[in-house]
Amino acid sequence: MKKLKRSGRLVDMTHYLLQHPHQLVSLSYFSDRYQSAKSSISEDLTIVKDIFESQGFGSLLTIAGASGGVKYVPMVNDNEGQAFVNELCKKLEDEKRLLPGGYLYMMDILGSPRLMNEVGRLFAAVFSSQQIDAVMTVATKGIPLAYAIGTYLDVPVSIVRRDHRVTEGSMVSINYVSGSTKRIQTMSLARRSLEEGANVLIVDDFMKAGGTAKGMMDLLQEFHANVVGIGVLVEAEDAAAEKRLVDDYVSVTRLEEVNDKERLVKAVPGNVLEKLKEVKQ
Amino acid sequence: MKKLKRSGRLVDMTHYLLQHPHQLVSLSYFSDRYQSAKSSISEDLTIVKDIFESQGFGSLLTIAGASGGVKYVPMVNDNEGQAFVNELCKKLEDEKRLLPGGYLYMMDILGSPRLMNEVGRLFAAVFSSQQIDAVMTVATKGIPLAYAIGTYLDVPVSIVRRDHRVTEGSMVSINYVSGSTKRIQTMSLARRSLEEGANVLIVDDFMKAGGTAKGMMDLLQEFHANVVGIGVLVEAEDAAAEKRLVDDYVSVTRLEEVNDKERLVKAVPGNVLEKLKEVKQ
Repeated sequence: MKKLKRSGRLVDMTHYLLQHPHQLVSLSYFSDRYQSAKSSISEDLTIVKDIFESQGFGSLLTIAGASGGVKYVPMVNDNEGQAFVNELCKKLEDEKRLLPGGYLYMMDILGSPRLMNEVGRLFAAVFSSQQIDAVMTVATKGIPLAYAIGTYLDVPVSIVRRDHRVTEGSMVSINYVSGSTKRIQTMSLARRSLEEGANVLIVDDFMKAGGTAKGMMDLLQEFHANVVGIGVLVEAEDAAAEKRLVDDYVSVTRLEEVNDKERLVKAVPGNVLEKLKEVKQ
Repeated sequence: MKKLKRSGRLVDMTHYLLQHPHQLVSLSYFSDRYQSAKSSISEDLTIVKDIFESQGFGSLLTIAGASGGVKYVPMVNDNEGQAFVNELCKKLEDEKRLLPGGYLYMMDILGSPRLMNEVGRLFAAVFSSQQIDAVMTVATKGIPLAYAIGTYLDVPVSIVRRDHRVTEGSMVSINYVSGSTKRIQTMSLARRSLEEGANVLIVDDFMKAGGTAKGMMDLLQEFHANVVGIGVLVEAEDAAAEKRLVDDYVSVTRLEEVNDKERLVKAVPGNVLEKLKEVKQ
């Protein structure tokens, strides 16, 4: 690639780093790419680091030594995170999403890549300091969120299914009890879609009594995998929480009240912003 | 936000534009954001444009006039596109993915956000000049690809389902004939998950006889929506293609041979790279 001036290098470097989150990039890579001295590259990276960190959209870790380099870790600016979570709560409180039986229509939110990517960046920031080898979710609604997180953490996604398809090869299945309906259900994961002993982040769009999350935790045991954390976009109101099957999870929003008769939905921020603060300390 | 020097502006601007594909950003926005004269902003954008376009990862359209500004359109560098498609073919030819009945295990590919995002960028580039309001796919395996494309085109995703969930509200359902198995099946889309008259890009992970794609086209008629195009990651071998139900589509790869007995898979590039060339002319 042709020799670039600093201004050009900064643009290309920023693009390259944003395309390679959580990947260690050696100084030699950049100095070869731009045919520039490592000293100039280091100066470039200092400028990039300053902006990433002052703007709050990422941190740039510098690893010294022969095998060293830089690593871009996606982060979320506190104010932007706050504003985004409030915006989500506001969206959830739109009574038009109330469905018979007090269910909430959420595909307008889950169907927006832009929103999913913002949530994904938020979770990636919260779990940025932990060793995560895969993100796991259950079909169908958890998938967009899982890929958004997987993108920012640069890890693969494992999709648990409630049916069994020939295209999955051999699968590991377990039965679990849906916490809310108390029905026995089955979930399966393709044997080869997750490595034994992997460190896994479980995500889902909605958590009521936590039966599905608990099921995924049980399924992970079959793979001798470790649960690093659980992230959900929306957690149901406390009524359901009292008998919740899992207690340690990160939520973006929490429903305080869903009243079908009075056409009322009350949503408040979950614990994700506190978790984000903890990570930044 | 604090006043930035050019070097800092270039880094922040690159990040901002990459986060907002296909969105018109006014010069005033940047000059306010950086408290800099529009003349300096224009110079910044010329540098950004040069790099984006010389590196081939995007074009920067400049719209003149009061309502004008710049728009980042994700593109794919020809060599990178070529290398990526070849890499995908190589992956597909790994005989380990052969399943009983000649099915192919693909979750290692579909489960990789990094790969899905590259395919997404490829399709977003190919369809960049067309008016697209939504990407539509059918659960489950088409979803990762649909969101990757939706991200780069900045449009919502509509997920067609084969079951009917209470959380979808009222749904529009149609019956369709699976081209390969000839079985009658049902697919449904939530009434409010797609606007009437929308211009839709249909995507799926795999196309055999095209029955599913044809079904989605029929379903779109119920929404008085227009099919802008069809994109698939893998198209099946010609044997199936002879009686294929749809003929105009863009494919990343094509299977030439899948031989269960001899443990052989032969994959070649689809027509996506020719389509990319056409777009760039």
